[in-house]
Amino acid sequence: MILRADHVLPVTSPPVEDGGVLVRDGLIQEVGPFEEVKGSGEEVHRFEGSALIPGLVNAHCHSGMTLLRGYADDVSLNSWLRDYVWPVESRMNEEDVGAGASLACAEMLLGGVTGFADMYFHMGAIAAAVEESGMRALLSYGMIDVGKDENGAEAELEEGRRFAEEYGGAAEGRIETALGPHSPETCSARMYPRDSRIMTHVSETESGVTSVVEREGQGPVEFLDGIGVLDGALLAHGVHLSGEEMEILAERGAHVAHCPSSNLKLGSGVAPVRELLEVGVNVCLGTDGAASNNNLDMFHETRLAALLHKGVAEDATTVPAETALEMATLNGAEALGVDAGALEPGKHADIVAVDLSTPHDTPVDDPVSALVYSAKSGDVTDVFVAGEHVVRDGDLRSLDLERVVETAERSAERLRG
Amino acid sequence: MILRADHVLPVTSPPVEDGGVLVRDGLIQEVGPFEEVKGSGEEVHRFEGSALIPGLVNAHCHSGMTLLRGYADDVSLNSWLRDYVWPVESRMNEEDVGAGASLACAEMLLGGVTGFADMYFHMGAIAAAVEESGMRALLSYGMIDVGKDENGAEAELEEGRRFAEEYGGAAEGRIETALGPHSPETCSARMYPRDSRIMTHVSETESGVTSVVEREGQGPVEFLDGIGVLDGALLAHGVHLSGEEMEILAERGAHVAHCPSSNLKLGSGVAPVRELLEVGVNVCLGTDGAASNNNLDMFHETRLAALLHKGVAEDATTVPAETALEMATLNGAEALGVDAGALEPGKHADIVAVDLSTPHDTPVDDPVSALVYSAKSGDVTDVFVAGEHVVRDGDLRSLDLERVVETAERSAERLRG
Repeated sequence: MILRADHVLPVTSPPVEDGGVLVRDGLIQEVGPFEEVKGSGEEVHRFEGSALIPGLVNAHCHSGMTLLRGYADDVSLNSWLRDYVWPVESRMNEEDVGAGASLACAEMLLGGVTGFADMYFHMGAIAAAVEESGMRALLSYGMIDVGKDENGAEAELEEGRRFAEEYGGAAEGRIETALGPHSPETCSARMYPRDSRIMTHVSETESGVTSVVEREGQGPVEFLDGIGVLDGALLAHGVHLSGEEMEILAERGAHVAHCPSSNLKLGSGVAPVRELLEVGVNVCLGTDGAASNNNLDMFHETRLAALLHKGVAEDATTVPAETALEMATLNGAEALGVDAGALEPGKHADIVAVDLSTPHDTPVDDPVSALVYSAKSGDVTDVFVAGEHVVRDGDLRSLDLERVVETAERSAERLRG
Repeated sequence: MILRADHVLPVTSPPVEDGGVLVRDGLIQEVGPFEEVKGSGEEVHRFEGSALIPGLVNAHCHSGMTLLRGYADDVSLNSWLRDYVWPVESRMNEEDVGAGASLACAEMLLGGVTGFADMYFHMGAIAAAVEESGMRALLSYGMIDVGKDENGAEAELEEGRRFAEEYGGAAEGRIETALGPHSPETCSARMYPRDSRIMTHVSETESGVTSVVEREGQGPVEFLDGIGVLDGALLAHGVHLSGEEMEILAERGAHVAHCPSSNLKLGSGVAPVRELLEVGVNVCLGTDGAASNNNLDMFHETRLAALLHKGVAEDATTVPAETALEMATLNGAEALGVDAGALEPGKHADIVAVDLSTPHDTPVDDPVSALVYSAKSGDVTDVFVAGEHVVRDGDLRSLDLERVVETAERSAERLRG
């Protein structure tokens, strides 16, 4: 099939006006002006007044937490975790987590997100939700050993490995897995095996950094580097980083998932994104869980990343629109290890159509600017993952939306008591 | 008529579940549980799964600038104004400004904004757009005298007064007017007559503050206070304010329109909103023009105001959801001098229905949190201004949307050349 739109934004090359994308066997075969791509006798999907972009990648999420949306606002991270989130999470069963994950997948797909990275528990239920939804994901079981004895720690690691082995490559390859030691604050070195792909939280709060320094005599980045697990690791947040730490992350090829809404909402601070980009770290974007956001809206995160660092640096040229769009697509796909995030021959056909003919997108001068600064998740009309037409004209085809919403509401009601 | 919804958010009192709002003669007559409000034999509009809130108030806008949406991104305020905005504005005729204003009104109404404050030129065309749209507005002609001779300055003031006198109370009272000296940087004291209601920019950038200090030997707030025009004045931005200046603003009863998106995007900085609220200044919210935002979306501004100041202060309790909602409604109405912004008997029936049954709003625990942190402008289904049903089930009834968008596109195309 050929997708045709007023604007095609390959991300790795300039926008094409009246462009076409030829898709076959779940892969992009050709991208260019429609007149050059057409003529192969394929079915044409026309998106008038729209832009085609690579699917957005949410590089840090806890999908089960959508059940806790709005459950605890306007409290500090410490109280948020201890007084609200952890107690209710301890009551969540596998069905609840699956309900939350299905709701998360529905929200993300409808908002143009084709892939995400997730760390939670009852991960089998999350994998099932991902498979059914048609999305792509990098999944990990979130492990914690601080406060646990030897057996407890071993059981955590065992569960992490078991999940990773069982589900790696599942859903026709749309699901990949990693180990998910929660963070250097909550995990000792043993939870970071050198032989595994790692997804972890790093330096989200000042007090978290301090607690690692007190225990290990070094900061979180040095600690992880000492173990030797930073190569290709996916690190969430990175709010409190020194210049030296950023250099280490760049050298090791670690990925940083910047979560601006969550960092602001929990009062964690503002990540040094400009500096991370300057030293060459691959910075991608994440929503974090819906409990600290309170959405899974990558249009929000992209726009906010583009705005926030300009304001804090008092420099309007910081994180220009092109960079923000790269962070939301290409950089996220790289962090997840997925060959997508750009409209190029050979990449997975994870493609999103965004209607730019609305009043709030008019007039469109530069489609990249329109995408980053004006467009909203509600402008997404069509979503393809691996060439499958998962959202068609605003209609989610892989999940029964009404049932998903009702099931999540029932779980949430029971949990909140 | 009676409006009935799952959640009624009066703003000045706690949310009412299954609430009703009785509207008669453009005014709110009664608010409470539906069972108590009903029974008067009135027509009932039922909004299932929705919240009713007071109409959002955009307290700082330049509606003609919607034509310049995306025209110049990622450049400093100085270059943005001198190299891009002013040259293209000099080519705008009355028809262009009217086209931009109609597009602005359409975008705002569809996003739940019932009233706004505006400063621009060809203000008659803006007043006509407001009247046709059914919105409310406080309008001013933007005056500048720096660089002008005696005659030029006098002509500016003359035009400002002429517009204010001619249009004050127009559109059955939905339009009120003020004088709009652009800013202390671009206006001398003569442009701030003591006998008039004033709308002006204050301390948007550090360099702007410096230029006033160099010319006047005092900062912008002292300068305006010396003239005696701060009482009830509507001041946009207020990014660079000292503690002493904030005390003065509080004492004088000046209103500050905080424009977080625009301040970030132009690299102007982060306004001291927490401190302004602490000293008792009435802080409301504005989008600024679409050229520096790039939307007129008050859901964006409300969410961003609630998030940004938590992050910068590293305190998650800063600007809680209730405060953000007040800023977007009640405080804005106060700043515009309109008896609205709350669902209370006697207030204008400026009311918005927001659908909270979407995946991204599920589950709803606290409707105020849902409104501020999860809901989006696209969730607005119905808008009433002075009791008139201007948006019905997502359909804008006062303007021909297709024509508005096309007319704006034509103007924008010609202007951009």
